Amino acid sequence: MSEQSYRLTISCPDRVGIASAVSGFIAAEGGLITEANQYRDPVSNWFFMRQVIAADSLRYDADELQNRFATIADRFDMTFRVTDSSKLKKVVLMASKQAHCMSDLLYRWRSNEMRFEIPCVISNHDDLRSYVEWHNIDYVHLPVDADKEAHFAAVEAQLEAACPDVIVLARYMQIMPPHLCEKYAGKMLNIHHSFLPAFVGARPYHQAAERGVKLIGATCHFVTTDLDAGPIIEQDVVRISHHDSIEDLVRKGKDVEKMVLAKGLRNHLEDRVLIHGNKTIVFE
Amino acid sequence: MSEQSYRLTISCPDRVGIASAVSGFIAAEGGLITEANQYRDPVSNWFFMRQVIAADSLRYDADELQNRFATIADRFDMTFRVTDSSKLKKVVLMASKQAHCMSDLLYRWRSNEMRFEIPCVISNHDDLRSYVEWHNIDYVHLPVDADKEAHFAAVEAQLEAACPDVIVLARYMQIMPPHLCEKYAGKMLNIHHSFLPAFVGARPYHQAAERGVKLIGATCHFVTTDLDAGPIIEQDVVRISHHDSIEDLVRKGKDVEKMVLAKGLRNHLEDRVLIHGNKTIVFE
Amino acid sequence: MSEQSYRLTISCPDRVGIASAVSGFIAAEGGLITEANQYRDPVSNWFFMRQVIAADSLRYDADELQNRFATIADRFDMTFRVTDSSKLKKVVLMASKQAHCMSDLLYRWRSNEMRFEIPCVISNHDDLRSYVEWHNIDYVHLPVDADKEAHFAAVEAQLEAACPDVIVLARYMQIMPPHLCEKYAGKMLNIHHSFLPAFVGARPYHQAAERGVKLIGATCHFVTTDLDAGPIIEQDVVRISHHDSIEDLVRKGKDVEKMVLAKGLRNHLEDRVLIHGNKTIVFE
Amino acid sequence: MSEQSYRLTISCPDRVGIASAVSGFIAAEGGLITEANQYRDPVSNWFFMRQVIAADSLRYDADELQNRFATIADRFDMTFRVTDSSKLKKVVLMASKQAHCMSDLLYRWRSNEMRFEIPCVISNHDDLRSYVEWHNIDYVHLPVDADKEAHFAAVEAQLEAACPDVIVLARYMQIMPPHLCEKYAGKMLNIHHSFLPAFVGARPYHQAAERGVKLIGATCHFVTTDLDAGPIIEQDVVRISHHDSIEDLVRKGKDVEKMVLAKGLRNHLEDRVLIHGNKTIVFE
Repeated sequence: MSEQSYRLTISCPDRVGIASAVSGFIAAEGGLITEANQYRDPVSNWFFMRQVIAADSLRYDADELQNRFATIADRFDMTFRVTDSSKLKKVVLMASKQAHCMSDLLYRWRSNEMRFEIPCVISNHDDLRSYVEWHNIDYVHLPVDADKEAHFAAVEAQLEAACPDVIVLARYMQIMPPHLCEKYAGKMLNIHHSFLPAFVGARPYHQAAERGVKLIGATCHFVTTDLDAGPIIEQDVVRISHHDSIEDLVRKGKDVEKMVLAKGLRNHLEDRVLIHGNKTIVFE
Repeated sequence: MSEQSYRLTISCPDRVGIASAVSGFIAAEGGLITEANQYRDPVSNWFFMRQVIAADSLRYDADELQNRFATIADRFDMTFRVTDSSKLKKVVLMASKQAHCMSDLLYRWRSNEMRFEIPCVISNHDDLRSYVEWHNIDYVHLPVDADKEAHFAAVEAQLEAACPDVIVLARYMQIMPPHLCEKYAGKMLNIHHSFLPAFVGARPYHQAAERGVKLIGATCHFVTTDLDAGPIIEQDVVRISHHDSIEDLVRKGKDVEKMVLAKGLRNHLEDRVLIHGNKTIVFE
Repeated sequence: MSEQSYRLTISCPDRVGIASAVSGFIAAEGGLITEANQYRDPVSNWFFMRQVIAADSLRYDADELQNRFATIADRFDMTFRVTDSSKLKKVVLMASKQAHCMSDLLYRWRSNEMRFEIPCVISNHDDLRSYVEWHNIDYVHLPVDADKEAHFAAVEAQLEAACPDVIVLARYMQIMPPHLCEKYAGKMLNIHHSFLPAFVGARPYHQAAERGVKLIGATCHFVTTDLDAGPIIEQDVVRISHHDSIEDLVRKGKDVEKMVLAKGLRNHLEDRVLIHGNKTIVFE
Repeated sequence: MSEQSYRLTISCPDRVGIASAVSGFIAAEGGLITEANQYRDPVSNWFFMRQVIAADSLRYDADELQNRFATIADRFDMTFRVTDSSKLKKVVLMASKQAHCMSDLLYRWRSNEMRFEIPCVISNHDDLRSYVEWHNIDYVHLPVDADKEAHFAAVEAQLEAACPDVIVLARYMQIMPPHLCEKYAGKMLNIHHSFLPAFVGARPYHQAAERGVKLIGATCHFVTTDLDAGPIIEQDVVRISHHDSIEDLVRKGKDVEKMVLAKGLRNHLEDRVLIHGNKTIVFE
């Protein structure tokens, strides 16, 4: 993890010779592959690949790698991307009042367990300010009143100023308007506090208690214009019993939410998550 | 487990003194309690209890225990039940073509891992006959044709002849008619091949693949007139990934189905499952 | 959880009539039981019980409950204890350099997810001072040099001053001397970063990598004079693969450590953990 | 899974250009890659690869693929292997009295969930004969008396006659002599009823109960001359509590054993398991 590397991610229609062309290119450039994954979706006949190349095995940087690879990409109608592991992604965190996901991500950030930059935290409440600011991170309080449009205009301006690579809705309890969903498609992650597609929408733990399920869960997904219906990145569950009150469900659920969001975000930051229609390929 | 015992299960409105009255009664009779559970639902203020009493600590049998306890039950408006662990329950298994749940239950039965009697296996197909008959169990083939009513009339007649304590729909792929659901309310268990309430109805693994979930599950529940909506007894999940085809989902799901059904049935056979509205209390 | 209650925990040799005597006593006092668990160990023939009584159903406080119950306790040779849920336990946290368990517990504490008092944090390093002090908690730095005896004398003095109900070794990387283990027997919890009894002692993740296991785990246990051999309160595991480096094992393991320690401590704080020889009864 | 394919597995010292050479070779032959995995162990600097090639994309069979690939293999000092998915492996199952793993594997075999041939079942007891023979599989009873050498000579003769690709010790309760471990190195799988390395040797569930662990497990590993110390293929665990007697541990453990053995064997049959020293690479 800690050594500099370039990550090449690819998707394209499958045919014979793609893996050969890609690895042949890397070998010809002298590139040492430290990690490689590929997947062929037999239904859509689509091809996905992730290659990690040791930076010091190449004589040039990620931009040049991107330029040189373009010829291969053209030949196979590839969508592709090159990222440099040493260029930390900018992640804007958005939250409301609840602190569990925010605290968890900030711990992982300050302990270098996960490496990214935080241009700012945006919240529609002021509750988390002191904690966030202890980390020397800008806290932007954008309240929501009757005029939701004003709120989202302010959010949009703030996001534009921050130039984020990723936006994380870490229990931000407002429904993002469609134009922001589209503007940041594939870049905005949400944590939903249920095992989707069960219990879409508000108060999923109450819905779960009502139905009498024996497990509750959480889902990290990309935000799309369909509420809680975007491509799923990661999910997990925890066992509950009749003893558990709604309060217990919320408490147990928080631990799952934190873990699922952290794992989903980590995979996304490491360019392990490729989107294919409404699904994801996660190269772990 | 193996020593004879009487199981007393109780539900009633909660008030001070119930536990005292019950355990006082048992102590006065000289009963040795080997297992005891109780639960108070704070929302409905309802009380649930399960007591297991060593049979040889009493001077009489389960019927007499039932008679003597009636006075206590009256005082507290209890619904209660006494069962004798040495009287094996009669379990009718119903299946269609798929063998995984049937095979699993038959293994647990013949190895004495789970103790019950099997008056017969009922199926709308003949596929599982040879396997079932190897166990010296009656196999009743009741085909389904255009006239579903005829099928269910035959099923009902067969069930009446068998006098089952429990009916297990071990991947029986027909929707049970309402009057049979009601007739065997609280006695008929189904295994549904999804993590309910997600993916109700037909082809849940196809629905799961379509939605791109990262876990699939199974649910053991009591059958009610609402399809796949009865009280849930047990659920579990297994992790899947983009690599898994529908075929893989079906295969992985089968293992979860088997385990969930076996665990749900075991708990039900041991009188650990109490129904409360559309939920269950499971005293494990 | 949030309403005041008294918790009565009991252990004694089993015989007929104990549950009756206890619940009879509670009923006679007008006590409303909101939660109750009991267990009989068939091997040692020992009886364990936990009763939770709504405080407002009694006309007196926990001390008086303790006094009144003593008669019952004498009759059955009981070891017993009454605690008041509104009297928060004093928990001294001890750590070294690693922040993950400390941060996790402090989050749960400041968000009121777990309720206890923290007289101070003791560490043999100064690394966590700023973070702990942000919470307005005393941070006591007691360095370890060649003279370990001096360190532990200082620790002991500090502990005596703090009068802790519980001491949590939240990745405190020093071996506690026998006389402190004995002094705080049943009150000192440790988190060990392996699935005990596998990989006792130092560098368990390295041991795990060396052996090529497919799961790693963590264990919360009471500290005794035998290193990593005290009664186990809670354990859990996480899946790893050949892809995971030692660094990955450490990272994944930290999440399990946090969860296992938090769950073990929660159960201990709620008086759910009873010690029986070198094992625990955990009434969940 | 169901379409014919060739599986190429490779291990060799890592250097630039291996992936390129392999995929270049496959592309030049017109091979369609349907699945591909690779791994580089950064500690030993060793390279591992598994490629699955659609059989109908090549103009020749697996033997010819093996011949043609030899040139590449020589260049990189590869150990490699080509298998044909349509040539079912011959798996000899060995058991003693316990039926759970045997029944589970036979179910998976007869339902075509796992595809392999069973030349015979070998047991030192006669208990499982009737069940095995119902499947039309040869049952070879080789009793063990004082003369263990005679038993193992008979086992060896039987194995030689069967020419197995794989030998599965499905709860065969005899310690395999060193010369057989060596003769079938990398081909003989065992299921051990504990989470290794905890509880090596006899009666692991009793050891687990004695230690008071909160999870029990099972381990599928290659048999080597060191008892229970060979390369681990798969492991899993299940939660237990103080309520569980030894009998319960055995029962719960059986379910884990079955699942772990089936998963380990499936991966081995699909040539997903590569051995590296005392560890395994499992390409899932």
